[in-house]
Amino acid sequence: MSVATQSPPTIDQALDSDALQELLDGPHRALRERIRELQRRPEFAPVSGLQPEAYRARVLEWMRAIAAEGLGVPGFPVRYGGHDDPAANVIGFETMGHSDLSLLVKFGVQFGLWGGAVLNLGTAVHHERYLRATAAAELLGCFAMTEAGRGSNVQQLRTTATFDPATDQFVIDTPDEDARKEYIGGAARHAQVAAVFAQLIVGGECHGVHALVVPLRDGDGQLLPGVRIEDDGLKAGLNGVDNGMIWFDRVRVPREALLNRYGSVSADGVYSSPIENPNKRFFTMLGTLVQGRVCISGASVSAAKSALTIAIRHGLRRRQFGPSEEAPEVPLLSYRTHQRRLLPLLARTYALHFAQQELTRRFDAVTRAGDVVSDNERRQLETLAAGLKAATSWHAVQTIQTCRECCGGAGYMASNRLGTLRDDVDIFTTFEGDNTVLTLLCARGILTGYAHEVGELNPAGLVTFVAGQAVEAILERIFARQIGQVIADAIPRSDSASEGPLRDPEHLRELFEWREGHITASVASRFRRRLGEGNDAFEVFRAVQDHAAAAASAYIESFVLRCFAEAVEGCADRSLREALGQLLSLYALSDIERDKGFFLEHGRLAGARTKQITREVNDLCDAVSRQAGALVDAFGIPDEVLGAPIGLLGA
Amino acid sequence: MSVATQSPPTIDQALDSDALQELLDGPHRALRERIRELQRRPEFAPVSGLQPEAYRARVLEWMRAIAAEGLGVPGFPVRYGGHDDPAANVIGFETMGHSDLSLLVKFGVQFGLWGGAVLNLGTAVHHERYLRATAAAELLGCFAMTEAGRGSNVQQLRTTATFDPATDQFVIDTPDEDARKEYIGGAARHAQVAAVFAQLIVGGECHGVHALVVPLRDGDGQLLPGVRIEDDGLKAGLNGVDNGMIWFDRVRVPREALLNRYGSVSADGVYSSPIENPNKRFFTMLGTLVQGRVCISGASVSAAKSALTIAIRHGLRRRQFGPSEEAPEVPLLSYRTHQRRLLPLLARTYALHFAQQELTRRFDAVTRAGDVVSDNERRQLETLAAGLKAATSWHAVQTIQTCRECCGGAGYMASNRLGTLRDDVDIFTTFEGDNTVLTLLCARGILTGYAHEVGELNPAGLVTFVAGQAVEAILERIFARQIGQVIADAIPRSDSASEGPLRDPEHLRELFEWREGHITASVASRFRRRLGEGNDAFEVFRAVQDHAAAAASAYIESFVLRCFAEAVEGCADRSLREALGQLLSLYALSDIERDKGFFLEHGRLAGARTKQITREVNDLCDAVSRQAGALVDAFGIPDEVLGAPIGLLGA
Repeated sequence: MSVATQSPPTIDQALDSDALQELLDGPHRALRERIRELQRRPEFAPVSGLQPEAYRARVLEWMRAIAAEGLGVPGFPVRYGGHDDPAANVIGFETMGHSDLSLLVKFGVQFGLWGGAVLNLGTAVHHERYLRATAAAELLGCFAMTEAGRGSNVQQLRTTATFDPATDQFVIDTPDEDARKEYIGGAARHAQVAAVFAQLIVGGECHGVHALVVPLRDGDGQLLPGVRIEDDGLKAGLNGVDNGMIWFDRVRVPREALLNRYGSVSADGVYSSPIENPNKRFFTMLGTLVQGRVCISGASVSAAKSALTIAIRHGLRRRQFGPSEEAPEVPLLSYRTHQRRLLPLLARTYALHFAQQELTRRFDAVTRAGDVVSDNERRQLETLAAGLKAATSWHAVQTIQTCRECCGGAGYMASNRLGTLRDDVDIFTTFEGDNTVLTLLCARGILTGYAHEVGELNPAGLVTFVAGQAVEAILERIFARQIGQVIADAIPRSDSASEGPLRDPEHLRELFEWREGHITASVASRFRRRLGEGNDAFEVFRAVQDHAAAAASAYIESFVLRCFAEAVEGCADRSLREALGQLLSLYALSDIERDKGFFLEHGRLAGARTKQITREVNDLCDAVSRQAGALVDAFGIPDEVLGAPIGLLGA
Repeated sequence: MSVATQSPPTIDQALDSDALQELLDGPHRALRERIRELQRRPEFAPVSGLQPEAYRARVLEWMRAIAAEGLGVPGFPVRYGGHDDPAANVIGFETMGHSDLSLLVKFGVQFGLWGGAVLNLGTAVHHERYLRATAAAELLGCFAMTEAGRGSNVQQLRTTATFDPATDQFVIDTPDEDARKEYIGGAARHAQVAAVFAQLIVGGECHGVHALVVPLRDGDGQLLPGVRIEDDGLKAGLNGVDNGMIWFDRVRVPREALLNRYGSVSADGVYSSPIENPNKRFFTMLGTLVQGRVCISGASVSAAKSALTIAIRHGLRRRQFGPSEEAPEVPLLSYRTHQRRLLPLLARTYALHFAQQELTRRFDAVTRAGDVVSDNERRQLETLAAGLKAATSWHAVQTIQTCRECCGGAGYMASNRLGTLRDDVDIFTTFEGDNTVLTLLCARGILTGYAHEVGELNPAGLVTFVAGQAVEAILERIFARQIGQVIADAIPRSDSASEGPLRDPEHLRELFEWREGHITASVASRFRRRLGEGNDAFEVFRAVQDHAAAAASAYIESFVLRCFAEAVEGCADRSLREALGQLLSLYALSDIERDKGFFLEHGRLAGARTKQITREVNDLCDAVSRQAGALVDAFGIPDEVLGAPIGLLGA
């Protein structure tokens, strides 16, 4: 038998990558096309090796060019330069996630964070005053939330905004070194104005964190009195963004500087808010900023697509070793070790793509519904966005690193972009919420069953809240469709090897949801049991923390699988449906394989079955390797945007 | 009960970190101290943001300063400026692995690769001509092995060295674009001379790959006729090293340019070699270069230590959230999620440290023994060096990334060095042998049982060789001490939860060796069965590839555990022994937990036991967190070398 028929051929373009791209592009295809066209222009060509100041200037130019095309804020109301299309904000961001990521972050700070704060936390007066200039990038803003001493614990930040009724002003002040605003994108050079998050103090009483508009620089770019800014200097990546630290020394702003949708102060110094409970108010305000996480999640998926496009094309072209010294060398992607490294990541990237599209759809629906939407729906969106952002950004970091290694020395050349991609994406795991904290936030959302009362971020609050409810009641609310199964799990039932086809999506979904239900139930009952034993609430939280994180991950994987399965079912074209179905099987089975310890430990799968899964993953890798070229072509990343010589379609 | 007694205190300096450092420093403590002292000088302070040309110049200065101290080549014979101490080469490299890694790589190219090629592949004439000047860094060399088209497949490289008897010269030639030398450190700017690997052609016959000394630049740094060099430009890291591409256009060198320890050509054009078999000759020549892998492995462990020192000190100082709004915030390292991320990596770093010391000891013994050493011993060393280099460099990449994330925004600042560390260490997974290829090389070493015949790197050769032997015979040779157990494994025996203390080192070792034996046996029998079924040898290799890689990993982990256990047993001080014993348990149990799917799948552990292991890992994390400060202090990295403000001992 000849070697050629034995080794799987790794190039099979039978799959119509144009049709697949159309499917992936989805309803906002036209917007994606516009952005791709724009970014193919020579002036957007990837750069490397620019000195920070030149890089920052280039990024600012790029951002202005995008604003000039009216692409900055499709989510803004029409009257302020947008299209009243919240999903388009996310899709635009996702599409730009293939090009320079400093540009992406600069863009996100200006339009998403600064613009979003004014839009969502401000009222008509602020909209009229700032939104048009923001959309046109004539007014450059930044988002001053994080403080040096309190990265994740926003509720405890220490900058103060004290109302002075005598002058009808707020006094913004940085009380100590820990309270300086830190890592603020745009602060070091370009921002003229900031949305500053501070404890609002009125008549000696603190009303919690609110945002105020504080000018930083005058028309000539000179810092205003009382504002001190230092450059954060060189970073591990994103050096086209001008991050800085800000200190305020009793800076005075007029009363209208308060973005007062959720809290106002009258001229005579009376505080009022549409939300009575300060905790709920805080989380509602934070909740309106969910777009940032949805966007970062989309860009993470895009970055993984970029890296895979480079590494898979390289793996199809690059040959190394062969059956004998005389025989031709074999493409890297024919090797099982190479397939095993890249193809499960490719399958998961497809899965996350569809999950991201569903998250975007929900974000759009909740945003359009405005105040009509229930707290419950809003909270579900936040839970999902927190968990998915953590999952996608970790996936991106892992994928890019693996792709770099799979491209060997060529992958290490700056021109091939994988190093830059990794360095830039790395911080996606930290900003817009540290991934570990977000995973726990997601767990809280699941465990409290989207209760109407907004729990406290404070761990003790969570514990007490969870303990106050019957575990079964929580489960029933979350897993209505499978509660019987979860309870029946007391008697483990083992999947025998003969139980049926492993690739059946319904079967895979059942396994994922069994895992989700089982972990969630066991975390909830651990909470209850430990508190029942009289343990300190914080210690209980600490002890259960990693278990709760596992529950969040299981929840997210179930969601991802469902979204992918729905996309496959909804696909009209048979050959695309088969290709996607294969990817779905690979995604799900390689996830089960990775986590087989859990399934075996709990008696849900037997050893014979998990070994069968390993063989199935191998077979799927072979099958997917034959379509791998078309599968990355369908990501639709133009050569000019991808940049990397080893990854070009036309190379 | 107060929170303070509930949450584990995370600072406990009862552990004597000086004594522990002395233990870690081992027999070459004085050398380590000398290097640390040198690198604490202000001129060695870490740099960031230098432009490549300035950075390269700085690195060259640094390297010369080290050579001036006589620290470049302790492994060289005394008459050439060394101390006849091969281990010192590795220990010096390892110690320098805490400072700038461009310097480390530049150093490694000059003294290890170039110097090592002359020392190990050359004969007296070459030693006399080059070694003194090399040791003094007066003559700068590079190591031109890798070609653009053949990264890992060195045996098939295409540069030619053709003997011309008329002029008594070799003609060095780059036949096509794929054969250009690529990523050659030192080539772009500084190297005056290169050890060039080429197919040696004498009288029309090819004798395989040999190394020749080829001058690249004249005294003024101008390229010599026929030599073309291009700069590789910006890389993802290590930008203080001047990597470049080299083309040779019929460059003539005298006959003595051939480094002729393993192959000579007489004036009348007759080739001779002390090793008849060309394959064996090739692998023997490559084998003498094992020092590079041993060194990279040591530097990888050092890089992991640097990152952990930064992240653990940060985790002990940085507080976030707390039991209530009024209570003080809690150090990050008190959180289980944080402990779970960092402390198993710390334990594994300790384990790898001791494994690395044992590898260094064996390298030293084999090197000192010279030609007296058996092929078998040499091959064992190569197998171990290949596998351990892959394990340590992957560990370093994972550890640094996790440390970066655990330090949040501060970890992303260039001043805190984690980004640079990651970018520089990244390529350790590729150079001195791609990690996947090295893992398979290690697997080959295990499967062929260190046979005297040198198998072919060519997969078909491996398959045929393995298939030619009885599986049991292979096993008997490798696992003499446990062959009974491996065979008895046909009937799985399950570790019951009551089987005894999980932390017992003997028990842990048994589990590790059971895993190693089981995987190795099953890979070997798969090879035999599939070939018996008449499958194509290459396809069998392809199908079994990832399974073979798993065998190599299991082999390495067993080795690591044994080395660690011996170090613990040999530790005279009781409190140190207890602390190390705890780390050993954490290392071993978290590895079993990670791989519990395997133990469960094969019936070696039951679910109740693996759940117990998870609880034990949690308890060990708590216990180790209390000594974490002292455990990283014992790595002995001076503040001036570590550089990172968040990671300083005195911060």
